[in-house]
Order: sequence, then structure tokens, then C-alpha cells
Amino acid sequence: MSWNVYLSGEIHTDWREKIIAGAATLGLEMEFSSANTDHASSDSAGDHLGEENNSFWRDHKSAKLNAIRIKTLIQQADIAIIRFGDKYKQWNAAFDAGYCAANDIPYVTLHDESIIHPLKEVDASAMAWAQSPEQVVEILRYVSAGPKP
Amino acid sequence: MSWNVYLSGEIHTDWREKIIAGAATLGLEMEFSSANTDHASSDSAGDHLGEENNSFWRDHKSAKLNAIRIKTLIQQADIAIIRFGDKYKQWNAAFDAGYCAANDIPYVTLHDESIIHPLKEVDASAMAWAQSPEQVVEILRYVSAGPKP
Amino acid sequence: MSWNVYLSGEIHTDWREKIIAGAATLGLEMEFSSANTDHASSDSAGDHLGEENNSFWRDHKSAKLNAIRIKTLIQQADIAIIRFGDKYKQWNAAFDAGYCAANDIPYVTLHDESIIHPLKEVDASAMAWAQSPEQVVEILRYVSAGPKP
Amino acid sequence: MSWNVYLSGEIHTDWREKIIAGAATLGLEMEFSSANTDHASSDSAGDHLGEENNSFWRDHKSAKLNAIRIKTLIQQADIAIIRFGDKYKQWNAAFDAGYCAANDIPYVTLHDESIIHPLKEVDASAMAWAQSPEQVVEILRYVSAGPKP
Amino acid sequence: MSWNVYLSGEIHTDWREKIIAGAATLGLEMEFSSANTDHASSDSAGDHLGEENNSFWRDHKSAKLNAIRIKTLIQQADIAIIRFGDKYKQWNAAFDAGYCAANDIPYVTLHDESIIHPLKEVDASAMAWAQSPEQVVEILRYVSAGPKP
Amino acid sequence: MSWNVYLSGEIHTDWREKIIAGAATLGLEMEFSSANTDHASSDSAGDHLGEENNSFWRDHKSAKLNAIRIKTLIQQADIAIIRFGDKYKQWNAAFDAGYCAANDIPYVTLHDESIIHPLKEVDASAMAWAQSPEQVVEILRYVSAGPKP
Amino acid sequence: MSWNVYLSGEIHTDWREKIIAGAATLGLEMEFSSANTDHASSDSAGDHLGEENNSFWRDHKSAKLNAIRIKTLIQQADIAIIRFGDKYKQWNAAFDAGYCAANDIPYVTLHDESIIHPLKEVDASAMAWAQSPEQVVEILRYVSAGPKP
Amino acid sequence: MSWNVYLSGEIHTDWREKIIAGAATLGLEMEFSSANTDHASSDSAGDHLGEENNSFWRDHKSAKLNAIRIKTLIQQADIAIIRFGDKYKQWNAAFDAGYCAANDIPYVTLHDESIIHPLKEVDASAMAWAQSPEQVVEILRYVSAGPKP
Repeated sequence: MSWNVYLSGEIHTDWREKIIAGAATLGLEMEFSSANTDHASSDSAGDHLGEENNSFWRDHKSAKLNAIRIKTLIQQADIAIIRFGDKYKQWNAAFDAGYCAANDIPYVTLHDESIIHPLKEVDASAMAWAQSPEQVVEILRYVSAGPKP
Repeated sequence: MSWNVYLSGEIHTDWREKIIAGAATLGLEMEFSSANTDHASSDSAGDHLGEENNSFWRDHKSAKLNAIRIKTLIQQADIAIIRFGDKYKQWNAAFDAGYCAANDIPYVTLHDESIIHPLKEVDASAMAWAQSPEQVVEILRYVSAGPKP
Repeated sequence: MSWNVYLSGEIHTDWREKIIAGAATLGLEMEFSSANTDHASSDSAGDHLGEENNSFWRDHKSAKLNAIRIKTLIQQADIAIIRFGDKYKQWNAAFDAGYCAANDIPYVTLHDESIIHPLKEVDASAMAWAQSPEQVVEILRYVSAGPKP
Repeated sequence: MSWNVYLSGEIHTDWREKIIAGAATLGLEMEFSSANTDHASSDSAGDHLGEENNSFWRDHKSAKLNAIRIKTLIQQADIAIIRFGDKYKQWNAAFDAGYCAANDIPYVTLHDESIIHPLKEVDASAMAWAQSPEQVVEILRYVSAGPKP
Repeated sequence: MSWNVYLSGEIHTDWREKIIAGAATLGLEMEFSSANTDHASSDSAGDHLGEENNSFWRDHKSAKLNAIRIKTLIQQADIAIIRFGDKYKQWNAAFDAGYCAANDIPYVTLHDESIIHPLKEVDASAMAWAQSPEQVVEILRYVSAGPKP
Repeated sequence: MSWNVYLSGEIHTDWREKIIAGAATLGLEMEFSSANTDHASSDSAGDHLGEENNSFWRDHKSAKLNAIRIKTLIQQADIAIIRFGDKYKQWNAAFDAGYCAANDIPYVTLHDESIIHPLKEVDASAMAWAQSPEQVVEILRYVSAGPKP
Repeated sequence: MSWNVYLSGEIHTDWREKIIAGAATLGLEMEFSSANTDHASSDSAGDHLGEENNSFWRDHKSAKLNAIRIKTLIQQADIAIIRFGDKYKQWNAAFDAGYCAANDIPYVTLHDESIIHPLKEVDASAMAWAQSPEQVVEILRYVSAGPKP
Repeated sequence: MSWNVYLSGEIHTDWREKIIAGAATLGLEMEFSSANTDHASSDSAGDHLGEENNSFWRDHKSAKLNAIRIKTLIQQADIAIIRFGDKYKQWNAAFDAGYCAANDIPYVTLHDESIIHPLKEVDASAMAWAQSPEQVVEILRYVSAGPKP
């Protein structure tokens, strides 16, 4: 089987690229997906449906369009990697984790030791905690590889 | 019917008490529930199961015991109120929102205008956004009241 | 057992009252519920959350608050009665019928012979078609009564 | 992934063709499906199973055969577009919307500003409201496209 | 807990009464339910909704009203007893067995040795096969009783 | 899409072959499946697992092996055709109908007019009643064909 | 709310009694349930349905009757305690753990340190590992108690 | 269709190889999967995520990584074969059986006559009990083969 891997969270470092490249190097049979990771285009996703004076509704329209993509891809994922950086609120990443937990989709968190405590509820439902993209790649290799020949 | 209302999120202000008191004043037939909101006792919930040198595992044990309570109560809730304050990461509140969304449990967010943007994904799946406990009480009154006599 | 009966649709005639009174006369053990049937208060349900210039968003906020009530009550219903009058679009009633069908909640339609054709898809998933509140009461009596003594 | 898009509703204008052509122009990887949109053949779908004197049962037989197709295709859809025109009852379109909502299939409505108010319950569960086929095509492009390269 | 027991099948002997009486004698905390077991009233259940010339549609209307009752009660049952006599087709009893199997509701069959072979598929999904109402009562006593004091 | 069609019931006439041939003639994109329709081999399916003195257990072992096949194929079916002949008990066919109903898999019955009454509960949950394989083929063609070009 | 607690596993020590007594002492609002813990009566549960020469079928009949009770009670449980002693195979306890995991029912294991390694898969899906009935009682108190007053 | 077969349990004999070879010889269209069957690499699966002093947590991390693989593969399986040898606790195999039962995935047990009694609960939910890999291959051939030509 080919594994579907959803990559959720932080968009300011190249962790996605590192995981995808690492999996490619190992020849893992995997398909990766993500939300739109371009901040500006994500925020303006709904603008073509009509201008809004109220920033709440502008955000609302864009966030709902993004949600179509996100929920569809998460529901098709065999595993999700959820990344928390050291800046910003990143409530969408924690939301995705709760969504995965309730849908029985296993997820692995990727974050530094410094934020263990505020992430303890998110980690409590995770299948593993990784600190580097390399560790995530090794997890993906391990769970997708069959028994040793 | 009596409505089960789950109150998730911030523990540093008295928003829970205000909502519960407001509902009582109106005589609403509701049962409120929450996670353990005492910070210290929540963090040490698992300590009686044995000491841990590693803070990750100490947090892990406590968070899992808290999760038994939280998930059970959310699954029994007819509606959840999810509160975000202006401080701290509050990833557990966003996690609860995602968990509600996936379980088809309607939720209302309660937060200030200043954090609309980082909460846009959480608000996109919410049934309403309130800015005060009084508005939440009015929502609870409205949804639970039958047609006007 | 006591049956939960959800009454959906038209709000301009007294069909709800007739059904409830008929069931009471027969002493049926039933609890009836409905959306807010007061048109003006239903339309303004969300106004207390802040004014909207845009009528779409005003409607949106109120409709979502109404949806909390409607979906919760439908999911608890053992049976729904869905009424179509001869005026107005009544798309919410047809929406409720589709929602019941997908949730495997049996429903009975209540409408005149004149609108059989446009309602054929809604009737195709119904358990019965009634033309009068009296027929609905007889259906409720029949399905809730145990075997003849 | 290839997206399955279900097109529900009005059959008197060429909105389906415009969306399909627009998606083809952009090279979107999508499969579109619909109910039988030929009115006469849809109404007579069940006639070969035996004549009916009673128009209710004639409609019933045809509507149930149509329902086999409709429900199967909706359940396989990743997204539905639900179109309301300015004429006719179109209760089947609202029924499909309720069916999608209960099955957690995201849908986008396509209708004019003039019918916002009667559609408020249908729009309240939608992920977006579009006013033109071009906007729908842009939505489909956006949700199905991966992160910018 | 009180157990809900659904009694499905044959209506020409007093097996229901024997089970109910046996459970009462033992003081078991159980609530029994059934379809309408009065043959004539069951067949005419839908007649009050309008006369039918076609016997298929007369049966159809009555069977659908009966189905409201049957499916609701089966879904609430903790256990079903499904009885096959030595006469008649009794396809409704086998239908109920398949419905229970798919809903993960345990059922016990009650029938003579002479019809083991034609019932082998129905028995294959049953939790037990009983040959007398007395055996059924003993089963109900056993599964509902707590550990010996 | 290709449709999966499960053919359940009577094994003494060539109705399966007629439907499969009819679909092939029309070039329908369909995959047909069935239980093992060879009576002797079906009855002896479990014999290789060890001899049984007791005919109940011999039947039980074979029926459970057949059930692995039947339930797997029904769960993958988009539609089932359930055939009742004029002889034998055929409780397995009625069981399959109940199983389909509970799994929300649409089914069409195929039987003569003479057995309408005993099949009324099975027909009440069916999407159509056909009296000939030719009618079934027409149904399959209709539901699987897209809108007229 | 009152919590339903299912107690699974070892029957040779008084761990059940200790937990029940401990909860009573604290006045916890809980209802405890178990399989039949009387070994001889559990093994002979099906004997009244007819003698078996073959020990496999004797065990089979009794185990299925026990399963009616066990699965019904587990599905109603809010939490399960699963106890492994130092003797016997106890495969039924591990089976119950897998059944809880798949049904999203949180469970706590109760076992000595000496069997950590063979139980690692069972513990991996558990919410906590306890080594004494006293620890289990403290867990039950903690998860069922509301926020500190 | 191609069948997905999950092979769970004992890792010290070549039963997996025998089944896979037997299926290949018969040309069965099947895909087999397993947990990591290499004992040492399975136990150390989580070591790359950081060293643990506590053996419970070392086991925990590895078991959770294994669980990602196991649960994903079981959920995709059409049938599982669950093997119990004559040594070791093998609680993971019984756990998998309970997990299959709750997920409605049919399974066949493979074990000697000597352990019938302790496995009676596991066998009670199985679709068959086999004593040799050859019998399993015959079961796989039978359930996957279509009706005799």
C-alpha cells in the first residue's frame, strides 16, 4: 500500500520539504499533502466571492474554503505529522490534532523540548513525539515497511 | 430535555462561573461540566502512579488521566463553549474544538476581537462567536428554549 | 418508552398544535419539539452578537444559532413530521428531511395532494405521506402502541 | 488525488456545463457527477416496472430509482455544488444539502442574492456561497491545488 | 441496568407470553417489545391514509408504518429473540435477524431442530440457538445477572 | 465509476446469468458478485476443518465460512439484487436484505406477484421491486448512466 | 453524571471487591459491572441448551452467551479496568482491551511490573497503568470529580 | 477484487510463509500484511526518539510506533488470521482479535487443540478455527473464489 501523510502546522521553516525529501531518498511509497502553506493566498482565499468590510467575515470565508481542503485531506490520511514552531499561536495545528484524534487518524507531533508542557494534551493523544524531521522520516519508514525479508 | 454544556479553555478568569450563574438566574435546565480547572492538581494528576524523572512522561501521565475525563464529558455534551484568553498557548482549547468538530458537537467560541485572525480556523467550524459570558448565556437560553408559548 | 417527535416546517397554520392536542387526547407518551417557530425572533436570533450591515451575515448568524437547536433535537428524535404548506420556498423543511434521511431517522411528510410532484424526492425517503394532522396523530398512536392486549 | 464533485439542483440553465468546462480549461483532476438531468426521462424512470393509475405511486417509483443513483454518487463525492434557480420549488436540491450536511460532505451553494433569506438554513451549513459558475470553478481550483511550488 | 428485549417473528403461538411470564417470575429487570402482533391490524395499518386498488401499495404503506415501530425498537434493544415456527414464509423474521447482525445487536434464535438447515445462515450470526421459551428465559436470566454474590 | 452489484438469493434458475449477460450486452461498467451458488460445495465448505457428528455444527461451520464471503461482498456493493423464487424457505435472502437495509446499501427485489404479501417487509425497505431479470438490467442501466449527453 | 465502570480480567484475587469498596468509601457515583466471575458457572453457561460431546462446541456455546453480557456491558461503560494476574493465559482480558480500544472506550490496566513487556501493546492503547486497586480508585475519583470547589 | 489479509500473532514458526506460499501456489489474488515480525527491531522501534531509563516508557514508545502500523493495516484488511502458539503470553494477538471483532473485520484463529479452553472467548467471535496453515489457505481460497463456473 501507499501511505497518505498529511503535514499540518508551522509554515515558516522547511520541515515539510525535509520530510518529503527524506522519504524520497529512501524510496518510501507515500503521498504527502498539506493545507495551502502560502500565508497571503490562504488569507485571501475567499476574496473572489465578494469584498467584506468586516475582518471577521473575510477571515471566515477564507478559513471555510481552506477547511474544505484540510478536512478532506485529513480524512484520507493514514497518518498526520503535526508541527509546532516556537512562535505564533498555531491554534489551527492544535485543532487539526483534535480533529485527527476524534477521527482515529494516528498523528505524530514535531516540536522542541521547550514546549512540552503547553502541548501535553496534544501529545497525550499522539502516537509519538519527534524533535526533528529526520526522526519523522525514520518513523514513516518504519511504519510503512513490511516485516524484514 | 436537559442540555449538557461543556466548558473548555482558559482557567484564569471567572467566565465559567458567570455563565453558570447566568443560566441559573434564568432557570435554564442545564448541566455544566469541565476539565479539572485547578492547574496544580491537573498537572500532578498522575503523580500517584509513580515518580518520573522525565518531565515529558510526568506530563504524559497526567494529561492522559485528564483526557479520560475530558473526552467522556465532551462526547456527552450537547454543546461546548470554548474560551480563549489573551495569554498562554491554550492549545488544549483548540484541540477540544477540533475534537468537537469531528464528533459533530456544536461549539461556540468566546474570545476578544483582538485574536480573530489566529482563531479563524477554530471559528470557521464554530456555530457562533461570542465576546462575553452574557452573550453565551443568551445563546444557551435561546437554543434550549422551545417555541414561544 | 416515550417517543421524541420533531415537528419541522411550515409555521403559518396550527398543524403543530393539532398534532400535540390529538396526541394528548389519546394519552400518547410523547415529547414534541420544534425549531423556534416565531418568525421574527428566529430571524433576529443572532442580533445580540453584534450588528451586521450585510444581510447575508445577519441571516447566517441567526441561522447557525437556530441550527444548534434544530440539529440537536432532530438527532434525539425517534420520528420527525415534516410539513409543507402551499406557500413560500420552505427549503429548510426539505433540508431537514435530507438530514433525517442521512441520519436514519424515520420521517412522515404532511402536505396536500397538489404538491406531490415537486415533493417526490422528499416523499421517496419518507416512511409515510399524510394529508392531515389527524392522520399524523393516528400514525403516532399506531407506531408507539404495543401489541394489542 | 482526483476530486469527485457532485452537481445538484436546477436543470434549466447550463451551469453544470460551465463548471465542467471551466475545470477542464484549468486541467483540474476532477470527476463530475449528477442525477439524471433530463426531466422527462427522470419522471418516467420507473414506468417500465408497470403502469400506475395513481400519480403518487408513479412519482414514488421513479424517485426511488433516481435516489439509488443520487445517494450513491453523493456518498462518493468529496464536495457537492448545490444550485438554486429563481423558479420552481427545488425541494430536491435542499434535500440533497441536508443529506450532505448529515454525511459530513462539504457543499457550496450557487444562487442569486435575491434568495439569500429563504436559503439561510441551507447556507448556514454550506462551506461557501457562490453567485456564478466562475466562482465555483475558482473554489474547485483552490481546494484541489496543492501548496504553491 | 434494565435490559431491552425485542421479540421478533412467529405470531401464532404464545412463545412471547411464555418468555415474558418466565422473566416476570424470576423478577428480571427487563422491558419487552414487539412489532404489532395482531395480523389484521398490522396488514391494515396504512389504510387510514387512503384506499389503494393495488395490493402491492396497500401492503407497502402498512409495512412502512410497521417498519417505523420495528426499526426504532430494534435499535433500542440490548438483545433480540427471533422465533421461527414451522409454517409460513416468515421472511420478516429473517430480515430482522440481518438487521440486528448489521447493527451489532446480539440475537438468539428460537426454533425446532427440523429447520436447522434452512436457518443455517441466520443461526451463523446468532449468539445462541434455543428450542424452547424456557431456554430463552434462562439465557435472559444468565446474561442480565451480575456475578454471583 | 464502476458499480459493484451483489446478487443474493435463489440458486435454481438462471436469473444471475441473465442479468450479467444483459449488462454485458449494454456495455455497463459493473462488477457482479455472489455467494457460492453451488449448493453441495456451499454446504460442505467447512468439512475440511474436521468432521462433525452433529448436523447443527456442520452447518454452522460452513455457514460462517460463507458469511465471510457474503458480508465482505455486500459491504463493498453499491447495490444488491435480492431474488426470491417460489420454492424453499430462502431465509438467507431475507437476512441479506435486512443486512443491506441496516448498512444503507440500496437493494432491489426480484420476485413474482404471487409472493407480494409475505415479502411486504422486505419490499418496504427496497428501492424497487422487479419481476424479471430484464427489468433489473434496465434499472442497473438507468442508475449507472450519467445524464443524457 | 454517574460513571459506568467495567471490570475485566483475573478472577482469582479480590481486586474487584477492593475497587468497589474503595469507591463506596469515597462516595463515588459509579456503577460497576463484570462478566460472570464464577468460573464453573461461566464454563457451563450453555449446557442447558443441550449436551455436547465435543469440548470445542461446549466452550463455544458458553463463551457466546458470556459474550452477550460482556459486549453489552463494555459498550455501556465509560471506562474499563483491565486486570492481568501473574498466572494463566488471560486472553479474554487482552481481547476485551482490544475491543475497548476499537470502541473508543478508555481503559486502565492493572498489573505488576513483572509483566510490563508482554503487555506493552495492551498498555500502549491504555490511558494509564496502575499497580494496585488503590491507585485505580484514585483514578476513578479523579476523573469523575468535577473541578475543585 | 483483491483481498487484504492481515496475519497476526506468533513469530517463532513459519506459519506466515506457509500461508503466503500456499496462496501463491493457488494463484489467489491477495495482499498479505503483518506487524514487524522481527522481535529485536520491534522492541527497539522507538529508540531513535531518545533513550529511556525506564523500561516501561521504552516499551511504550516502541509499542505505539508498532500500533500505527498494526491498526492501519487491520483497518484495511478484509480478513485477519490470528495465530496462537504454545508458548509465551501473546496478549498482542488476543488484543488484535478484540480489535477486529469491534471493527467488524472477520478473523480466523489458527491454534492447536490443546489451547481451546483458554481461547474460547477469542474463538467465540471468530468465523472459523483452523489447526494448520493448509486449512487457512483453503479458507482463503474458498471465501475469495467466485461461484463455480
